[in-house]
Amino acid sequence: MTSPEKIWTAGLIVIGDEILSGRTQDKNIAQVATWLQVQGIRLAEVRVVPDVEARIVEAVNALTLAYDYLFTTGGIGPTHDDITVDAVAAALGVPVVIHPEARALLERYYETRGGLNEGRLRMARVPEGSELIPNRMSGAPGIRRGNLFLMAGVPHITAGMLDALTGQLEGGAPLLSETLGCWVAESEVAELLRQTEAAHATCQIGSYPFFREGRVGANFVIRSVSAEDLKACSDSLTDGLTGNGHAVTPGGI
Amino acid sequence: MTSPEKIWTAGLIVIGDEILSGRTQDKNIAQVATWLQVQGIRLAEVRVVPDVEARIVEAVNALTLAYDYLFTTGGIGPTHDDITVDAVAAALGVPVVIHPEARALLERYYETRGGLNEGRLRMARVPEGSELIPNRMSGAPGIRRGNLFLMAGVPHITAGMLDALTGQLEGGAPLLSETLGCWVAESEVAELLRQTEAAHATCQIGSYPFFREGRVGANFVIRSVSAEDLKACSDSLTDGLTGNGHAVTPGGI
Repeated sequence: MTSPEKIWTAGLIVIGDEILSGRTQDKNIAQVATWLQVQGIRLAEVRVVPDVEARIVEAVNALTLAYDYLFTTGGIGPTHDDITVDAVAAALGVPVVIHPEARALLERYYETRGGLNEGRLRMARVPEGSELIPNRMSGAPGIRRGNLFLMAGVPHITAGMLDALTGQLEGGAPLLSETLGCWVAESEVAELLRQTEAAHATCQIGSYPFFREGRVGANFVIRSVSAEDLKACSDSLTDGLTGNGHAVTPGGI
Repeated sequence: MTSPEKIWTAGLIVIGDEILSGRTQDKNIAQVATWLQVQGIRLAEVRVVPDVEARIVEAVNALTLAYDYLFTTGGIGPTHDDITVDAVAAALGVPVVIHPEARALLERYYETRGGLNEGRLRMARVPEGSELIPNRMSGAPGIRRGNLFLMAGVPHITAGMLDALTGQLEGGAPLLSETLGCWVAESEVAELLRQTEAAHATCQIGSYPFFREGRVGANFVIRSVSAEDLKACSDSLTDGLTGNGHAVTPGGI
């Protein structure tokens, strides 16, 4: 059952020293955000925390309370720095158990790859009461416990897990958006943007300036859950920009 | 004066609906993190929050308390959705004022670009008691107030502001790192990694697996503030890996 009035929200915790050291450029925030939009769920906050149990526990507790869904990426692999399962179990106050189906999956996967060892068996550990999220890319599954989703850190593995979850989560009306591109300095039309947004209550207008081909321009992204309001706001902004002598490129530049 | 014992820490708040919607791939986390490492400051937490004043205030309050430095990116432009200055001033309990030097900078910059209007003048607004961070790329400066740094959302503008701050902040010994690459499944050597880390108290070992050219491999990143400990740990891990029949590529694969 979908409830069009309710705005469904999610938090995301990106776990990993490699992101905080700058060694790895995060790609999961954008892909989780984009996927959530399609499910009718709004990503409301992201926290990036180190591989330190107390810090993960703190973030899980804060974001579980604040949002409908919570996703984590990173820290579910086989090595000693993969502590997401332990931290989440501690936050929830449940023990860590070996999931029999995950163990069977890993036994099959590693049958021709040197067999299951202690490190590999770590990937069958879950907070008690969890189910598995399929992983077509490598042996180790993701973990779902109610509205909490523990996913891989490697982006293409996370992508496969999100794919497996598509359509499984209750969401609201997806946030629609329309982009208008314009070769104008955003500072020149700031007042027009403000007035147009104020005149269309369900719409937000974001302004994203750029400098390209030696000229300044901006894309104005209008967002609304109502297709009708979105069109009215987009028409009104187009009129305002063209009325000021600026050509508008629908879909953005 | 540098204090080698103290670990200097920073928080980062990435402000912007465009990141949370997935429309824009964030690049500031990695560049701020990398820059901080060189200053001897550790990025300890990142929060991504929407363009909503209450949410920015909450994040500023939490991270100001927790870390030595706080950086923000985004929301200091000329449009109605640029509310970082107002939110930070509210969090600090100080008024927003026009900074005379910023106003003069903007007047000069826009002299040949259509003149200063209300939107553009927004970029001269700062929380009372702030100084400016030079911006060589476009007119609007960044803002520094004590250990709080408000920077642009557009990555190349932020890069210029970080450049202007290089060497200005007190930090500790920079965290050193060494990377060892190996064509091995990390799950095969998980126990070796755990034991090696445990035997070198000041070192952390991160394991970053990959799948490339049809084979699995991993880069093991050892981090320490002590060059000596780093070398001992790296040598010990190299011995362990080669002893198990795995060739090691110094510097990573």
